[in-house]
Amino acid sequence: MRFTSEQRLDDGVHERAFTLGGIPGILWTPASVPAPAPLILLGHPPLGLRGMYPRLVDRARRSAAEGFATATIELPGSGDRPRLPAVERARAGLRRVREAGEPVTDELVDALVLPLVDQAVPEWRAALDALLSLPEIGGPVGYSGGVISLGVRLAVVEPRIVAAGLFAGSFVPRALFEEARRVTVPLHVLLQWDDEGNDRQAALDLFDAFGSEEKTLHANMGGHTGVPRFAGDAVTEFFIRHVK
Amino acid sequence: MRFTSEQRLDDGVHERAFTLGGIPGILWTPASVPAPAPLILLGHPPLGLRGMYPRLVDRARRSAAEGFATATIELPGSGDRPRLPAVERARAGLRRVREAGEPVTDELVDALVLPLVDQAVPEWRAALDALLSLPEIGGPVGYSGGVISLGVRLAVVEPRIVAAGLFAGSFVPRALFEEARRVTVPLHVLLQWDDEGNDRQAALDLFDAFGSEEKTLHANMGGHTGVPRFAGDAVTEFFIRHVK
Repeated sequence: MRFTSEQRLDDGVHERAFTLGGIPGILWTPASVPAPAPLILLGHPPLGLRGMYPRLVDRARRSAAEGFATATIELPGSGDRPRLPAVERARAGLRRVREAGEPVTDELVDALVLPLVDQAVPEWRAALDALLSLPEIGGPVGYSGGVISLGVRLAVVEPRIVAAGLFAGSFVPRALFEEARRVTVPLHVLLQWDDEGNDRQAALDLFDAFGSEEKTLHANMGGHTGVPRFAGDAVTEFFIRHVK
Repeated sequence: MRFTSEQRLDDGVHERAFTLGGIPGILWTPASVPAPAPLILLGHPPLGLRGMYPRLVDRARRSAAEGFATATIELPGSGDRPRLPAVERARAGLRRVREAGEPVTDELVDALVLPLVDQAVPEWRAALDALLSLPEIGGPVGYSGGVISLGVRLAVVEPRIVAAGLFAGSFVPRALFEEARRVTVPLHVLLQWDDEGNDRQAALDLFDAFGSEEKTLHANMGGHTGVPRFAGDAVTEFFIRHVK
């Protein structure tokens, strides 16, 4: 892990860009860290860190105000990373079926999501190794938002993640429903009820499938990108309860 | 409205029992009320105020800590009030179909809920008239919990109610789905996901039907009576946003 740039934001949050095995990432730590800070991994959609930066830094600042460090890395095939040809073909296929008004098949969902998750999971775990080796970062670790299938897989395979805040805003391969049954950490799931690009019933079925004893679903209005401010605050409250 | 008894709780909350047109009720006001307090009407299931008292006083105390007055009245046919023979017959019918493992018909739901709501709505509105005439109570007014159909009807017909926290834990007649479309105030709906006595799909359909621009669904585990503490806190946060 190599830091490539750093800055202090106006609220004192320390932002450092890094690279790890060629993958770019960003780490935010609170203005004052008397003890090693608990860490929240910030998930995001596969649209590139640069474009997602404003929303990520907003989440980082709100988390830092509660004493959390946050970090994220670029997803496979996004930003400046090499494209994943199979996923690109699946995205073109998705555009075609949507324009034709046809249903999105299970095969297409698998092709869109599984290669991304398969490659991303070991990368996020390697990032976790590196981040937890820093003296200013302690544990425990939470995972928040982004591609929900990545969050589910990480919650199953990564024992250092003690709580997950998931955003039910993207396609979920059938295989992930089986993995969901093996999730046991506390979960906080956001669902935008009027998210037209999302399959609401699939999101509810996935919530039902989770094996966690404590799981909470927050459904709100505002469309895919219109998560209300108070719903974001509730995610922070969830992490305060579980990742401190 | 005639006060029949009063006491100070250990946290300073002022509790007064009252009677209004022969209907018993309870009013709680915060320990210190520098200005007229906003009011939350506390709904409850038709099990009698006496039996519900521990849970009601808990909600009253938590609301008072945030500066809210709270009040509730006995439902028709509950507590010491005369039974409603038609509703009693419907309840006996419900026990029979449940023991026989048969489905609960729309007609049975209507018979269970509609007479109760038809009679309760004018009573709750009369209570609101009386409560708002007290110098220590101001506006605005919220409605919280209890028989969801009563909350829906009140939210439609009572313009002084500016926000409603509803508990999706009881049967909903089909006619109420039409009324739900006419609800426009901000809504916060609690659903116990693993509430075996409740029809989860009907609760989700009702949430979908609400006409409110701001509506939030919080689904949690814990069974019918096991609403987690943090979910109760979220209801209070909702009222702080809308009823102050």
